[in-house]
Amino acid sequence: MTTNFADRLLEAIAAKRSPTVIALDPVLDRLPASILEGRAAAGERVGREGAAAALWEYSWRVLRAIAPHVPAVKINSAYFERYHAEGVEVYHNLVGEARAQGLLVIGDVKRGDVGHTAEMYAAAHLSDDADAADDGEPAPDAITINGYFGLDGVQPFVNVAQAAGKGLFVLVRTSNPSAAAVQDVVTQDGRKLHEIVAAEVARWASDAAAVGAKGYSLIGAVTASREPEDARRLREALPQSMLLVPGYGAQGGTADDFLPYFKSDGSGAVVAAGRSVIFAYKQPGNLSKPAANWETCVEQACAAFVADVRRAVGLDA
Amino acid sequence: MTTNFADRLLEAIAAKRSPTVIALDPVLDRLPASILEGRAAAGERVGREGAAAALWEYSWRVLRAIAPHVPAVKINSAYFERYHAEGVEVYHNLVGEARAQGLLVIGDVKRGDVGHTAEMYAAAHLSDDADAADDGEPAPDAITINGYFGLDGVQPFVNVAQAAGKGLFVLVRTSNPSAAAVQDVVTQDGRKLHEIVAAEVARWASDAAAVGAKGYSLIGAVTASREPEDARRLREALPQSMLLVPGYGAQGGTADDFLPYFKSDGSGAVVAAGRSVIFAYKQPGNLSKPAANWETCVEQACAAFVADVRRAVGLDA
Repeated sequence: MTTNFADRLLEAIAAKRSPTVIALDPVLDRLPASILEGRAAAGERVGREGAAAALWEYSWRVLRAIAPHVPAVKINSAYFERYHAEGVEVYHNLVGEARAQGLLVIGDVKRGDVGHTAEMYAAAHLSDDADAADDGEPAPDAITINGYFGLDGVQPFVNVAQAAGKGLFVLVRTSNPSAAAVQDVVTQDGRKLHEIVAAEVARWASDAAAVGAKGYSLIGAVTASREPEDARRLREALPQSMLLVPGYGAQGGTADDFLPYFKSDGSGAVVAAGRSVIFAYKQPGNLSKPAANWETCVEQACAAFVADVRRAVGLDA
Repeated sequence: MTTNFADRLLEAIAAKRSPTVIALDPVLDRLPASILEGRAAAGERVGREGAAAALWEYSWRVLRAIAPHVPAVKINSAYFERYHAEGVEVYHNLVGEARAQGLLVIGDVKRGDVGHTAEMYAAAHLSDDADAADDGEPAPDAITINGYFGLDGVQPFVNVAQAAGKGLFVLVRTSNPSAAAVQDVVTQDGRKLHEIVAAEVARWASDAAAVGAKGYSLIGAVTASREPEDARRLREALPQSMLLVPGYGAQGGTADDFLPYFKSDGSGAVVAAGRSVIFAYKQPGNLSKPAANWETCVEQACAAFVADVRRAVGLDA
């Protein structure tokens, strides 16, 4: 019997007392100098292989620093695809490494397509053990997907996720300035477009086969609006979905901003922090503290993020 | 001076007298037996490496068969990502191979994200020569992207495309049955959501820096509705965009169905055929014709597709 992804996520959150996730979006020129040293001769560019090797070393060290504190890591495929096959190999190796370190892995791939193509994306990004790729390379526990295609674009992912105990987070509302131009278009019945998408997601999520023992569905949503009113509406519109909420830290959000995404029992959302944690050593002063190195900076920023969310959600008691 | 992508596409269409593109979506278990033979012991599964090698051999032979007939190939990333790094390596190698065979390459990646992440996707999928990946691996001439994020999700791609003479096709209206649930939602002013997206795309496309010498923009659109009324409306709504129109053949479309996507001068659209061409050897009877092998079946189906579109658009004269 495969365990529902939402149940696994809720258990991991409970075990760490921390509804949080770290977004791993590594950018080569922001990595610690020690990671980049020796990867290219002075004045030379680092090639794809060197870049991929640097991303690997940096990323597994970040995973080691954050694993004691958070239940999950969100690994952003783009930053690895950037280095073509060499980067994609690192991406998949990191999925395995994160799982070995006891973390759930959300693959931030934002894929979206239909039919055979969606099946292929699902096999690529959710199947640990698919027919022809049976070489034992693990896939993420969940991925982000784009819902612009409607149900046809989601069902192939649901099929794989359901069979394998994996999960999905469908993009509902993003936080970028121009998101409103599409996502907040007002429809004939007065709702915004993203509310229509939310209602679709809620309908898919409510399918009995998708809902776990704790009442949440394997189909979650990405909800990133910083407007408290949007957050409250989305929380109500998606009663059975875990909400993945990016924007803490470098994007300006504080833990209290994210409270409306949680239910009154403190469940239902995971807050994501990225650059403020994984590049914490770039903050002035952090590296000059006693006994500090870049990894302790990352770990301390991660611990502070977790403490802040814990306080806001009331898990301190 | 970098040539605008729309100009390059129009030139390639003129040179082949053929506003067409072949969609390369290879599925392992539909490949010719001769390609699969020897890749795995009897009864054994073929691993990722064997699968990737089979995809490579099949795909370059397909490219060779179609290159004399069509101006461009659309290579669908999903079918290669499916085999992780091994597949992604084949994908990028095929981009180079297709270009060496004189084809323009549209990377069907349907990526969508914002900010740094979109920049990374643009660097991964549009840059031939980006700062840290300067190993000379060519990227597609254009890619498909998802517009759900609004302009923020498009601008990073436009920046790279503009500098490099590359192009974009933004998803506007897809043809899957459930597309209407999101894309046809009626908005307050009576327009459907995909018309709002089309208007956004038209606005982005009209930027002077994006428009080529022939009046078309590097920002095109994917428009797949089979409703003639939709097609006519989309053609009007997107006056400066090349329209990429999938659905010929296996998806049931005939060349005449696609006519409303063309302007009266026969320009402005490229029709895509996929399975009906690349798996033509699976059609009963095709392989038993005199001197037929799987590659001649592909080539003949490609030539028939091209002739059909030529006739419909009036390029026979």
